[in-house]
Amino acid sequence: MDFFSSDFKLGILGGGQLGKMMLYETRKFDIHTKVMDASKDAPSKIGCDEFFIGDLLDFDAVYNFGKKVDVLTIEIENVNTEALEKLEHEGVKVYPPTSALRIIQNKAKQKLFYIDNDIPTAPFSRFAYASEMKDSVEHESLSFPFVWKSAQFGYDGQGVKIIRNIGDLEGLPPGECITEDMIPFKNELAVIVARNVKGDVTTYPVVEMEFHPEANQVEYVICPARIDDKVAQKAKEIALKVSNSIQHVGLLAVEMFQTAEDEILVNEVAPRPHNSGHYSIEASYTNQFEQHIRAILDLPLGSTESKVAGIMVNLVGAEGYTGDVVYQNIEEILKLDGVTPHIYGKRQTRPFRKMGHVTIVNEDLLEARKIAQQVKETIKVIAR
Amino acid sequence: MDFFSSDFKLGILGGGQLGKMMLYETRKFDIHTKVMDASKDAPSKIGCDEFFIGDLLDFDAVYNFGKKVDVLTIEIENVNTEALEKLEHEGVKVYPPTSALRIIQNKAKQKLFYIDNDIPTAPFSRFAYASEMKDSVEHESLSFPFVWKSAQFGYDGQGVKIIRNIGDLEGLPPGECITEDMIPFKNELAVIVARNVKGDVTTYPVVEMEFHPEANQVEYVICPARIDDKVAQKAKEIALKVSNSIQHVGLLAVEMFQTAEDEILVNEVAPRPHNSGHYSIEASYTNQFEQHIRAILDLPLGSTESKVAGIMVNLVGAEGYTGDVVYQNIEEILKLDGVTPHIYGKRQTRPFRKMGHVTIVNEDLLEARKIAQQVKETIKVIAR
Repeated sequence: MDFFSSDFKLGILGGGQLGKMMLYETRKFDIHTKVMDASKDAPSKIGCDEFFIGDLLDFDAVYNFGKKVDVLTIEIENVNTEALEKLEHEGVKVYPPTSALRIIQNKAKQKLFYIDNDIPTAPFSRFAYASEMKDSVEHESLSFPFVWKSAQFGYDGQGVKIIRNIGDLEGLPPGECITEDMIPFKNELAVIVARNVKGDVTTYPVVEMEFHPEANQVEYVICPARIDDKVAQKAKEIALKVSNSIQHVGLLAVEMFQTAEDEILVNEVAPRPHNSGHYSIEASYTNQFEQHIRAILDLPLGSTESKVAGIMVNLVGAEGYTGDVVYQNIEEILKLDGVTPHIYGKRQTRPFRKMGHVTIVNEDLLEARKIAQQVKETIKVIAR
Repeated sequence: MDFFSSDFKLGILGGGQLGKMMLYETRKFDIHTKVMDASKDAPSKIGCDEFFIGDLLDFDAVYNFGKKVDVLTIEIENVNTEALEKLEHEGVKVYPPTSALRIIQNKAKQKLFYIDNDIPTAPFSRFAYASEMKDSVEHESLSFPFVWKSAQFGYDGQGVKIIRNIGDLEGLPPGECITEDMIPFKNELAVIVARNVKGDVTTYPVVEMEFHPEANQVEYVICPARIDDKVAQKAKEIALKVSNSIQHVGLLAVEMFQTAEDEILVNEVAPRPHNSGHYSIEASYTNQFEQHIRAILDLPLGSTESKVAGIMVNLVGAEGYTGDVVYQNIEEILKLDGVTPHIYGKRQTRPFRKMGHVTIVNEDLLEARKIAQQVKETIKVIAR
């Protein structure tokens, strides 16, 4: 099929910031795109050829949208998989495939999948209802502290909570969940694997993630990770094992813990461009969004090497501010070398909401890290 | 003014491929854009917030469009300057300013400007009508070979012709023109200068251009130019002199000849992002489109250094093909390291039409040059 002709149509489910960045690449390649999102003000409304409003969890909306395109991809996992399955049966190319998406959508399934495929992961328990956790605590089969994760629909650190005492269980959503042992880890790492339709596979360098202690959101993503080569090699091998087991098409972002004993445990995966790969727009020979497009169109995969070191700072809404967003001191950070802000285009800020990111690139990683800190201390996402 | 708020509107006159690439940057910064172009199928129709159809040379169309925005810029020089002047008087920020645009729009004026400002340029003659050239030849005040240039509206090598004999004068447009001596030059060079509203100035590295012998279009742009440092320094100084004389805001691309005696002569300038700066998307810390946006919004200018060496290959329509475009072997070039195609989105190809470009980046310039040659020999822009 000639992807570069106007006969070809690519569909993207979800019109958020990831979709928006994907659209820079489809514009570059002049690929005809249709986007569906529930919000009429979605960031990807601009930049696609056609924009549709529809609920991503609604069978009819997803099915009818999918019938209009040749290849269908996602920028968010929470989509109606029954519709995707039917579309697949009817010849629409759905990437990632429904089978991969189903494993990933539900965190309990995802954990069981790791066990079945001999992929190292933190010990866990599965609960059909949140209330069952309390019983387990009372029967001493579950002890504090532990990590609670909603089985469905986690995003931006929502759906994850550290439970230190019985009080922390109050107010959790009632549905299916898992609990995980708290892993004393040295580092959180991530590897993005790209896999095209014919099965060619390539991995990006291992990146290191620093989390905001309260918001449970990534603060810095550092590429390459400052870890030794053996650990990096192990992380890549495990990411490839997950990729090979799950048989995705497109990107797979594999988040991992490096334990005190240099064990690697898989935390979770996402079958799409990922926050941990945003640095690649400025730092890599082939950025993650272009790579995802290459993979799902079964084009040759591009080089995943870096031109320079890259660090990403998430721009999240400052605490205490809700309303029309203002990017305070953005002009100040533009004075710094190798600094590129990406503003997602959400009109309203609220505490910890992801409003954008800033990439810092430099030949020298330590210099980049210094500038990243300066960026973090200078720019503030507030309300008018 | 808060450029990052939805109250601010940026207007772009022209919706071609340069405007399209400018829009990647306005999307990245989430700047609200309005674009006007004569064609309803202009490449920048997608990616802007609002698209208007209008003739760029029509006073009313330009004036009415300009009244809707806070800052107005261009992606092509051939626009109605009377309208721009009126807009300027009424408080719209027009960058480049009308005064700079007027000098540049007319090649005869441009040449006189160089003389007035002591900027080295090839000797020339000015003719109010093309027919006067014939008289000059007959009176032996003009001798073959020489270069003919239409005073107005040159683009893509149109409006320029080498005249070797009396027959070559046949069929030229009848209007105002200049003739230039043929300069025996070693290299064609270009330097892009960025200048923001408050007058901060920075220059990109000197690039070297190789032209297609027949089509008079750039075939390769090579960054950095393979010339010695003294010549590069001289080229930058002259580019800065032009920039300072013309008092533009935004980018100024200065094309120059390096003569056999290492003299630098200014050929012509463009007050906007330029083909000679396309390599910067992949190779530079701050690409030319982002830099133009920074300059016209009076933001701090970014670093113009390169992360890696960059070479650009123009994708022009192959001879003998007119009709619905096909990018033959595009998948083959995607297999090569550091290769990024940019497809402009024009549906129809014809011989030598600019249909896109391909950037090749590599740590090693000579390696990049080899891959560029491979790209050139592999991809072909044909019709279905």
